[in-house]
Formats: sequence, C-alpha cells, structure tokens
Amino acid sequence: MHVGEIGEVELIWQIRSLVDKFQKKALVGIGDDTAVIKGKGNHLFLFTTDTLVEDIHFKWRFISAYQLGWKALAVNISDIAAMGGYPTFALVTLGLPPRTLLSTVEDIYRGMQDLSLKMDVEIVGGDIVRSPIFFITISLLGEVEDQRIILRSGAKPGDRIYITGDIGAAATGFICLNKKEISLKPESREFLEKRHLMPFPRLKEAREISRKKIATAMIDTSDGLSSDLYHILEESNVGAEIWEDKFPVASQTKEVLSRLNRSFSEVALAGGEDYELLFTAVPDKNVEEILNFQVTMIGKIIEEKGLWLVNKEGERKRIKPGGWDHFSKKI
Amino acid sequence: MHVGEIGEVELIWQIRSLVDKFQKKALVGIGDDTAVIKGKGNHLFLFTTDTLVEDIHFKWRFISAYQLGWKALAVNISDIAAMGGYPTFALVTLGLPPRTLLSTVEDIYRGMQDLSLKMDVEIVGGDIVRSPIFFITISLLGEVEDQRIILRSGAKPGDRIYITGDIGAAATGFICLNKKEISLKPESREFLEKRHLMPFPRLKEAREISRKKIATAMIDTSDGLSSDLYHILEESNVGAEIWEDKFPVASQTKEVLSRLNRSFSEVALAGGEDYELLFTAVPDKNVEEILNFQVTMIGKIIEEKGLWLVNKEGERKRIKPGGWDHFSKKI
Repeated sequence: MHVGEIGEVELIWQIRSLVDKFQKKALVGIGDDTAVIKGKGNHLFLFTTDTLVEDIHFKWRFISAYQLGWKALAVNISDIAAMGGYPTFALVTLGLPPRTLLSTVEDIYRGMQDLSLKMDVEIVGGDIVRSPIFFITISLLGEVEDQRIILRSGAKPGDRIYITGDIGAAATGFICLNKKEISLKPESREFLEKRHLMPFPRLKEAREISRKKIATAMIDTSDGLSSDLYHILEESNVGAEIWEDKFPVASQTKEVLSRLNRSFSEVALAGGEDYELLFTAVPDKNVEEILNFQVTMIGKIIEEKGLWLVNKEGERKRIKPGGWDHFSKKI
Repeated sequence: MHVGEIGEVELIWQIRSLVDKFQKKALVGIGDDTAVIKGKGNHLFLFTTDTLVEDIHFKWRFISAYQLGWKALAVNISDIAAMGGYPTFALVTLGLPPRTLLSTVEDIYRGMQDLSLKMDVEIVGGDIVRSPIFFITISLLGEVEDQRIILRSGAKPGDRIYITGDIGAAATGFICLNKKEISLKPESREFLEKRHLMPFPRLKEAREISRKKIATAMIDTSDGLSSDLYHILEESNVGAEIWEDKFPVASQTKEVLSRLNRSFSEVALAGGEDYELLFTAVPDKNVEEILNFQVTMIGKIIEEKGLWLVNKEGERKRIKPGGWDHFSKKI
C-alpha cells in the first residue's frame, strides 16, 4: 500500500496510533495546531513545524525568494497564534540544489527577518543540506499562558462559529497568478496575489481573543474552510452548520470569481491558505463588539455530526472536507 | 554566485551575518551544536534540527527504514548531548514521494520510537509533505542545567583533547557497505556497518561529563575529527596538536583499512559520522580515571592557531579541516 493511495488523513491516523501510546509528558501531541508541553510556572510551550517544497507547495515562477522566506515563517507563526500563544524562537532548514544563487538564500533570510522583527521571533539556527529540489522547513517554538490556551477540542453545541478577515482571497490570488490573462486593476491583482504569497499571521488578533477568553476552540485556516472546520468538529466531537450568505468576501475576490464564473462557495470551502482564525464562542458573547477587529459569525456548532452548508437559497446540504489536495499535513 | 561554488562554510558565515545582528534573547544562536535559550529557573533550553536527504545523506539500498528513523533521531540527540544536556521533545517532518510504502513510514517511526524510549524523548508532532525525493527532518528540544552547559568556545591553551569510544568505525562501515566484495567475518562487517547505520548517541557519557564538570569545550564528531575539532578551535580562538599514535581504533576498523591499504589517519580525520564526544579538559584532571567509560587523550590545545598532526613517525604537519563534503551543515 502506497501513501499516495491511502491519503493523508489516513496516513496521519496511522502515525498517530504509532506515536500516541508513548505520549506521557506532552500535554498535546499530534492533533492540534501545535504540540503543547508543560513549562515551568504558568507557561506552556508550543512547538510546531511546517515545510514548503518546490513545485509541490510553491513554484519559483510565481513567488520571489523574499516572499517565500516570509511565507514559510508566516505559516508557522499562524499555527502558534491559533493556540492563543506567541512565537519565540525558530530554526530554519534549507534543502538547496547546488546551483541555488547565494542571493536567493540571502533574500529568503531577508523575508524571514522582516516578518520575524514584526512578530518578535528570533532565528537561532537550523541546517543547510544539499538536495536535488529546494525545500524549506521551519520549526518554531512559542509560549502561552496556561489559562489562555485555545485547543481545537473545546467547541460545544450551540457555540457560534466566527472567522477573522475574509475568505477565499488567497485561493483567488493563486488563480490570478496562474491566469495572467485576466484583465484586472493592478491594485486588485496585487491585493489578491499578495494574500497568497505573503500571508500576514493573525497574531495580534489571536492574542486578543485569548486574552479576552472569547474562543472555546480555534484553528487557522490553511487547508480551506471546510477542512479546517472539520478538524475542530472531529477534535470536539460535534457537528456544524455554516451559512453561505454570511461568508465575508473581499470585493476583489468577488470580482475575479464572478468574472470567471467560479462558485464563490467552492473556492471558499476548499480554497485554503487564507491563514485567518476560525474559532467558536458561546452564543451569549457579543463577539463582534468585544473584539476591535473584523470578525464575522458564519455558523453554529450543532450536536448532529457532520458539516452542513446552508446556501443562499436556504437549502441545507451536507458537505465533506475538501481542501488543497497537496498531501501536506501537520501532524 | 551559486551556493555550490562558495561552499558550505562560507555560506553559513553569510547566513550567520544576516541573522546574528537580530539576536537579542537567545544565549547561543548559530555556531554551536544547538541553539541555547534561557528557560525559567536554572534550566536552559536547547533547540536543534538535522535533515537526511535520499541519495545525499543515505541510500535506500544500504539502509532500512527502521535504521533511518533511528539514525535521524540519533544524530539530533547527539547534538543535544554535546551541549551536556538531555533531549525532551521531537517533531518529525517526512518528505514523501507518493509511491512510498505505508510500511516504510511505519518502520521509520518504529526505529525512532525504539531509540526515543531508550533516550526518554517524546515525538509530539511534525509535518507530512509530498516531495519528489524522500527526506526526513527532525527538530529536537532539550534542556540543560545552567551550570552544566558545555559550549564549543571554552577550550584554553594547555587543555588536553579527549575522545570517547573509537575513531573511524562509521566511515569504515560505510566503505564496507559500498564494497560487498571484501571478505570479512560476518560479525566484523555487522559491527562496522551498524556503526554507520545506527549510531548510538553518547547521551549517558555526555551527562556524566557535564555532571562531573570535566569538559571546557565539547562537540560531537559528525563531520570527521579534523572538521569537528576545527569548530572547537574556531569558536575558542585557539590551535591544537593531535597525536596519531594515540588515536583509539577498533580492531575491525584496523583490519579492513589495512586490507584495503587505506591510511587510517585519513579515514579518521576526514571520515565522520562516528557521533563520539570530542572534548577538552584542563591538564591536571585525571579524566580517564574520573569517568567510568572509555575515553582517550589524543592531543592538546595550543596557542598557535591551526591544527597540527603529529604522525607515528613523530613528524608534525599542519592539516586542514576535511570531512564529508556532503554540503550538510548545522547552522
């Protein structure tokens, strides 16, 4: 049996079953945005890693080295943020074909450095290896106060589902990168492409959510709304209903998708890489007022298992998780 | 300028200069076996990563999946040990071609798990990514009591140089793997090949060295004696003289090398992958008696910069660092 045949979800369950029985000291192992380790005092350590492989997760003809460095660090910070924590120290591994330009390596570091200064992360080491294809792996440490941690497993029936920012811009940006022939205002193209190439991790927003103890469960949207929400549903053992007419969508996203006759809902549900925060909160909290940034209520947690989409016509249909099928999965 | 042209040492200096100026909170960044981070109380955190890439660092026709899992974790634990610390939590990233067998992934995890149980390490997560070639990256956290940390930078003129175990067995094992035609007792072949395929990290020995405060500087031998000693010399700003007739060599290593007419010294100096501890100690310590495992004095630290080999004929000649040129370097 090849790993390509069994699929990533099943593969991770196999690995989880091999690893879980040896878990004694870690508070959270495989199954959340990051591992959680007991620290001293009232702090917990968070520990995560993400890899981007040439031609699988990115193409050099679309992304600059600076942007790639930024993005590789951003997606790791986003995982730490989704736990309610803050990032601290990073290790960077570069797999380099020997013909890689020195300036490429320098630009990758500049991209990482610019984001790391904004996010107060230090790059403290790593590994440089020869490889026939380029890849970058970042491992990131973070911390969170024990009263402020937000897991995927805390959602309860009745909770409302919220998302920061808007949905589908990164996936639409990816479409734009592939279709240079779409005529679009340069600002709109830049806005959308940048959402795909240089996601800005919602660290400040996540810290406010954890400080104000608003969320019962949280994840960052990396695989697409349906897949990411499914992770919360599985870990919390609940179901959910989401309302298509409430999805927050940027006007630029709408413009491109309507011009291409693409269903917004399909892109939003399966698109991925927005790196927004998807979280649940008890129904009596007035979340939009408590938080001083844009969040939108897009559904609610229900007892009945599964994910249900209520579309603009009011029809309720069951949907399956379906994000990027790029065979890349945090474990 | 390609990274293949400038070489790994220069590349790391370039990266170090880009990263070092932003180092504020880390106690040790690039330039030692692991990064060192201030913890709470009297503990320091150690943070390291190592990658093995198919056909660059290993070949599937020589190593089993179980052995590869073991080795990938072993080389990381060895880095933590070389700081005087102990490992705690690991993240594992696998780059997998889609046709990888599920049983291969399971065997990799079994190899890691068997070593992790012996070394009291927990695997708490990671990442699974599709990749045209196989690679494995492990990131490892560890701790060390602040009075017990051993850096590369503490060697002083007059200090003696010691090594645990023996030298050159792993490199000789690698030669055996490549030359199946050498007729050799099966036990000798197994001994040597295992030293290459399944190094056993010197964690217990390193902890005893740090508990008894014996070493002024320490590193694990991964790149070959000359390269690894050079790292100590550079970080400590000193030179060294090593004595060829004192090098500890296993009888199996001697047998193979003499049969192949290979100079032992060349293999020992450039061979690498022994994962022994190379350390320095003040001259008045009776190190061999204080420690209850095999260590051998092989030279001394001198003021004059550079590395000098005194060969069996008593000739003193200057040697340059020259380990595996596999373009893989911890930063």
